[in-house]
Amino acid sequence: MVKIPGFFSLKHLLVLSLALNVSLVLRVLFESENQGLHYYGLALQKKFRGTSMEESGSVQKVAHVSKRAVLSTPFSSSSSSIGSLSEVEDGGEKIINLDHGDPTMYESYWQKMGEKTTIVIPGWQSMSYFSDIKCVCWFLEPEFAKQVVRLHKVVGNAATEGRHIVVGTGSSQLYLAALFALSPQEAIEPMSVISAAPYYSSYPSMTDYQKSGLHKWAGDARSFNKLGPYIELITSPNNPDGFTRHSVINQTGGALIHDLAYYWPQYTPISSPADNNLTLFTVSKSTGHAGMRIGWALVKDLEIARRMTKFIELNTIGVSKDSQLRAAKVLEAVTDSCEQAGSSKNSESFFEASYRLMAERWQQLRGVVNSSGRFSLPEFSPAFCQFHGQDLQPHPAFAWLKCLKGVEDCESFLRGHKILTRGGKHFGASPQYVRVSMLDRDENFRLFLKRLSTIR
Amino acid sequence: MVKIPGFFSLKHLLVLSLALNVSLVLRVLFESENQGLHYYGLALQKKFRGTSMEESGSVQKVAHVSKRAVLSTPFSSSSSSIGSLSEVEDGGEKIINLDHGDPTMYESYWQKMGEKTTIVIPGWQSMSYFSDIKCVCWFLEPEFAKQVVRLHKVVGNAATEGRHIVVGTGSSQLYLAALFALSPQEAIEPMSVISAAPYYSSYPSMTDYQKSGLHKWAGDARSFNKLGPYIELITSPNNPDGFTRHSVINQTGGALIHDLAYYWPQYTPISSPADNNLTLFTVSKSTGHAGMRIGWALVKDLEIARRMTKFIELNTIGVSKDSQLRAAKVLEAVTDSCEQAGSSKNSESFFEASYRLMAERWQQLRGVVNSSGRFSLPEFSPAFCQFHGQDLQPHPAFAWLKCLKGVEDCESFLRGHKILTRGGKHFGASPQYVRVSMLDRDENFRLFLKRLSTIR
Repeated sequence: MVKIPGFFSLKHLLVLSLALNVSLVLRVLFESENQGLHYYGLALQKKFRGTSMEESGSVQKVAHVSKRAVLSTPFSSSSSSIGSLSEVEDGGEKIINLDHGDPTMYESYWQKMGEKTTIVIPGWQSMSYFSDIKCVCWFLEPEFAKQVVRLHKVVGNAATEGRHIVVGTGSSQLYLAALFALSPQEAIEPMSVISAAPYYSSYPSMTDYQKSGLHKWAGDARSFNKLGPYIELITSPNNPDGFTRHSVINQTGGALIHDLAYYWPQYTPISSPADNNLTLFTVSKSTGHAGMRIGWALVKDLEIARRMTKFIELNTIGVSKDSQLRAAKVLEAVTDSCEQAGSSKNSESFFEASYRLMAERWQQLRGVVNSSGRFSLPEFSPAFCQFHGQDLQPHPAFAWLKCLKGVEDCESFLRGHKILTRGGKHFGASPQYVRVSMLDRDENFRLFLKRLSTIR
Repeated sequence: MVKIPGFFSLKHLLVLSLALNVSLVLRVLFESENQGLHYYGLALQKKFRGTSMEESGSVQKVAHVSKRAVLSTPFSSSSSSIGSLSEVEDGGEKIINLDHGDPTMYESYWQKMGEKTTIVIPGWQSMSYFSDIKCVCWFLEPEFAKQVVRLHKVVGNAATEGRHIVVGTGSSQLYLAALFALSPQEAIEPMSVISAAPYYSSYPSMTDYQKSGLHKWAGDARSFNKLGPYIELITSPNNPDGFTRHSVINQTGGALIHDLAYYWPQYTPISSPADNNLTLFTVSKSTGHAGMRIGWALVKDLEIARRMTKFIELNTIGVSKDSQLRAAKVLEAVTDSCEQAGSSKNSESFFEASYRLMAERWQQLRGVVNSSGRFSLPEFSPAFCQFHGQDLQPHPAFAWLKCLKGVEDCESFLRGHKILTRGGKHFGASPQYVRVSMLDRDENFRLFLKRLSTIR
């Protein structure tokens, strides 16, 4: 052993060594927590901004969650009864913006998951334009593709065998890519694009904003009577009203785009794996990560997949690799949660937790609507869900609310009560209807219920 | 002090404590290195893929860097003389793909920077569609905007005061957004879009692929003689030939889009801050992060910025937040490197390091071209660079190579030597020319020089 100088006793050295131990233990603990705290702080700053897309035209003082609420709100708050709303300092002043389907409801679930889906990207990773040149979609990250296939298998909501995956900057870009791919390049007149009303409010403007010679919005599919080729959009469950949908046109020469953004077990019973020619999905509504701008298409025909890829090449030269890698990690965590669900006490999957929250919100909303007598909501039949293994009610991401008692313009009526929604006319329907987001943060949703309950 | 049981001496405890110290010290060291190594491993896997965009039509065996090369290649390799090329096991079999401007050259610089630009994003961050509702571009991350302004100030290549920043999924999307914003919605016929040849090869197809009624590609600006409104694209330094450009049309009613993707100090002397109505930049060519798909526009007119934002809303409902945050971190590191350059021995800025590498590559290429007698390259005049503070030669990101001695189709000629380039006809120019990327990885670039030097 090393000779110890006389002025140091063994005791001195031991104390010194123990002190060093303590400092090192603290350092190890601190470093593993530090990153989380740092980013938590950043996200808190970000949280206190508003929610309004240009379309709403009303950038005003918007209702927000308080810092306290963000820190303490559990994803599935059994205490979120309307009785507790008196805690919310409202005074009827704040504008509640439920115009968009901003899925901020999911933030608290992912906060609870902690580091599980944290992604670390060094500065020199994913610099190239290319991800996989062997793939028809050469900018598709293989890890993202792998997690998409795994998730669909666990959830049972779509067949992936023999499909080409095309990744997009959200499913919006994939919708445009699909229109491009399905429209003949040399046609004399543009393809008619139709969807049964009420249809997603952005379809008409997305189809026509470029004044494309390839495709043209032709309105409600139920009143479509033109001969020749067409593209029918089928959103199921439907945005805005939440009903399961099938093609309504019985003609030859039609191409179908299935937008299944909401065909996930928290919103609707999963009856069987979708088996269409061209199906769109998005992380925005499945996991709540709208800010990533990641969607994917499952495409049967190679040539259509190739043309969709070409569209995205000309439009944006591919799709953010960073977001694809992050999305892969999130999808992996969701699938893992499904595989591990029930393996230990209190372990539930992402979809079980989200289903519970949606069911709770719908129950509360129906309670308020029934007791007010001023509104009505769609009624859904229960159906067997292969994922949950039981008969369940749909709980759509939007409430398709109807104003009763002579209110002709429900959007204006609710705006008068400082509730921003999207009126029925945007969806090819009556202005007596509005679409209300069910996916906002807890505090905003509670404030909405409180405000609605005061309308007599 | 705690009483020690008889069978433990102080010496025993001291040894135990010291052992614990050692293990904790190792853990602290290991944990800080581990992340880097993990991702380094991931990136190495990713590195051994090819580089080919659909347009080239030739997905074949592509020349790659060896693992050894990736691990050891410094960003500015003073040893990269052509003499050392005998080390490369080539045998003339591999296809060298320099068709695209994939900026993989920059990987080694960012590897050397280590953790400086590593980004950590927890699963619950940036979930909303919205970034800043007070901003005309509501999906623009404030931190990204801040770093854009800071970088332009340090580099001196663009005025940002009184400008609106619009972020895009690469500058491609911003180009399309600018066309949309500058074209009147109710015009009888589409706006003519022109650029002086040789022009960027993607402009014609990007302008026309949607068969838009808003705008139409009208070819070489120098032969444009139609009256009425038009949009002129000015790429400066120009892609493909590297020359500084100004508007060539002298008419009223024209709107200008300045694509300054290459107006950075590694490529060209910075003469003065650009002060245009609408200027486009991209991280792909400034820092080399093409996979992020992040570009930005500096826009004088609020209404144009608003319409560009609307285009991106309809096209992709915003831009990946993950990539914006990562880009912010990379731009910050670049600006920091400029501010700290020269403060200590051997500290040079990102642009100084990149300039050195570009100068070295151009010197080597000119050497090969001059001694072969089969090709020619553009000659540039030196100009004063405000950033570097001296007279400097341009070193463009592409070499605009001309085949001499009766070779009419330079692209086919080089393909015969297994070198993929983009032929002059794509740029509205003679097929005697090809565009060659100068931004590929070291090993690929050396292999290119070696292959070129064997053509007699």
